[in-house]
Amino acid sequence: MTDFKKLLNSHANLVESTLEGLLSHEIGNSDDELEIEVARPGRLVHAMRHSSLDGGKRLRPFLVMESAALFGVSPEESVFAASALECIHCYSLVHDDLPAMDNDDLRRGKPTTHKAFDEATAILAGDALLTLAFDVLSRKQTHPDASVRSELVQLYARNAGLGGMVGGQMLDLEAESKTPDAMEITILQSMKTGALLRCACVTGAVLGGAEQAQRMGLLQFGNQIGNAFQLADDILDVTSDAETMGKRTGKDADKGKGTLVGLYGLEKCRQLLDVYLEGAMEGLEDFGPEADILRETAQFIVDRKN
Amino acid sequence: MTDFKKLLNSHANLVESTLEGLLSHEIGNSDDELEIEVARPGRLVHAMRHSSLDGGKRLRPFLVMESAALFGVSPEESVFAASALECIHCYSLVHDDLPAMDNDDLRRGKPTTHKAFDEATAILAGDALLTLAFDVLSRKQTHPDASVRSELVQLYARNAGLGGMVGGQMLDLEAESKTPDAMEITILQSMKTGALLRCACVTGAVLGGAEQAQRMGLLQFGNQIGNAFQLADDILDVTSDAETMGKRTGKDADKGKGTLVGLYGLEKCRQLLDVYLEGAMEGLEDFGPEADILRETAQFIVDRKN
Repeated sequence: MTDFKKLLNSHANLVESTLEGLLSHEIGNSDDELEIEVARPGRLVHAMRHSSLDGGKRLRPFLVMESAALFGVSPEESVFAASALECIHCYSLVHDDLPAMDNDDLRRGKPTTHKAFDEATAILAGDALLTLAFDVLSRKQTHPDASVRSELVQLYARNAGLGGMVGGQMLDLEAESKTPDAMEITILQSMKTGALLRCACVTGAVLGGAEQAQRMGLLQFGNQIGNAFQLADDILDVTSDAETMGKRTGKDADKGKGTLVGLYGLEKCRQLLDVYLEGAMEGLEDFGPEADILRETAQFIVDRKN
Repeated sequence: MTDFKKLLNSHANLVESTLEGLLSHEIGNSDDELEIEVARPGRLVHAMRHSSLDGGKRLRPFLVMESAALFGVSPEESVFAASALECIHCYSLVHDDLPAMDNDDLRRGKPTTHKAFDEATAILAGDALLTLAFDVLSRKQTHPDASVRSELVQLYARNAGLGGMVGGQMLDLEAESKTPDAMEITILQSMKTGALLRCACVTGAVLGGAEQAQRMGLLQFGNQIGNAFQLADDILDVTSDAETMGKRTGKDADKGKGTLVGLYGLEKCRQLLDVYLEGAMEGLEDFGPEADILRETAQFIVDRKN
């Protein structure tokens, strides 16, 4: 196993144990100062665990932790902000998989949350994961300085909401009933998938108190790997199979959904992927060898098979 | 019109214009420092506006603003925190009304969001309203001190999430298939409805930099009016009609859903309502005539007809 893969695994393990701690079955209280009795309903906790534990490569948390590491922030310090972002990613998958949305039965090789539980529980589990993300961001563990915590709340909310991920999902649904052009596809993907990847990289800069130029560099890096990630995904949707991907493939073509692959063809898209990769590397040009892991991450995103 | 009703109206107007500003159709950017192009999809903005504008008594914002006023915080200063809470309340209504949940067609006399648009759009509009709430809380307009903003994020997230409103909604769904006892009904209602009302009153204390004793008093007040609010609602569900309520009534009985009215009967519940009212008044005993509006609010909640 390469050092990169080892680091990806070890960061993923740290995120896993952090999420595990956040979603323990112990009784919690909605307000520590109160004697007002509240419950953590077991079925909801189970559904949130099903939706977030034992899942995926944890790419977004990895980007948070490795961007933060550029500024000397340890994974143990950045893991809370990283886990909050993963909660947002996981909630979005739960809601996207619902029958009213993409209607998917399979996710990461497991039944989707509404299949394993039911639709109502899946909607609530998604809502609770999104809410938990902001709970975590507001904790002193995330960062001792309240102004940093507040900045992260704003960063996450803007990238996850109307002008970011959720807005992108809306555009994606609308794209099923019309034929978007290349610019429209790029904007929708930049919102739906790109926003959280950009958010991850900028989070590292915020946690690390980066200077503006460094922050802008990480933003460019995040933006370009976001473009690359989605394009690689669209290419895999055409060239891979469900077993390798752990989810249904060929969905875009089935739905007649516009993608850059559909517009430009595979060959040109593979070239475009290289352009994105170059742009990502440019974003890191102010950083030295300490950013090599992020450079490998960009390469990994371009090369990935699932 | 009484002074109380006038104040309720004028605060509601201030909330309305604040929400209107937050949900304007103008193009927004997910990150002010970027040139990355994002959109505010029109359909999603429309659905968010449908879900949140021109709605209800704005009771939760009113409680935020009047609790804050106890400490000399003006409505113009507290309206952002108040509007953020209203966004959370409105999102919860949109998701609760979905076919997979309560399956309601009518809300405040208008078609519910999934009826006016479609299910996918309603899910996303709810998600975006919840996310917008945290965006607003993180803005300097909400409070100049980042530690106050961060504290509000935590307060809202805890009261809205797994151990609060969403958890209560889960318990409520589970209650349809079993017969909860009085204690279980009280806990679920304290989470589903009570959490945001408590949150509203404590928000005033946080915005105003209240001492601990004052904060605890407002918490007790919020808790007791929460109990009263839900009990009054259950009584109205039995005694009122859809025209007066602006939504379908008799739902609880139709679903065989356990309520305190079902367990105890109307007469005993009306007495219990008076006990809650007394408890609410007790919570305000450290405050003088400046809290008379809150006292009237408690009375209003007990007396309301819709």
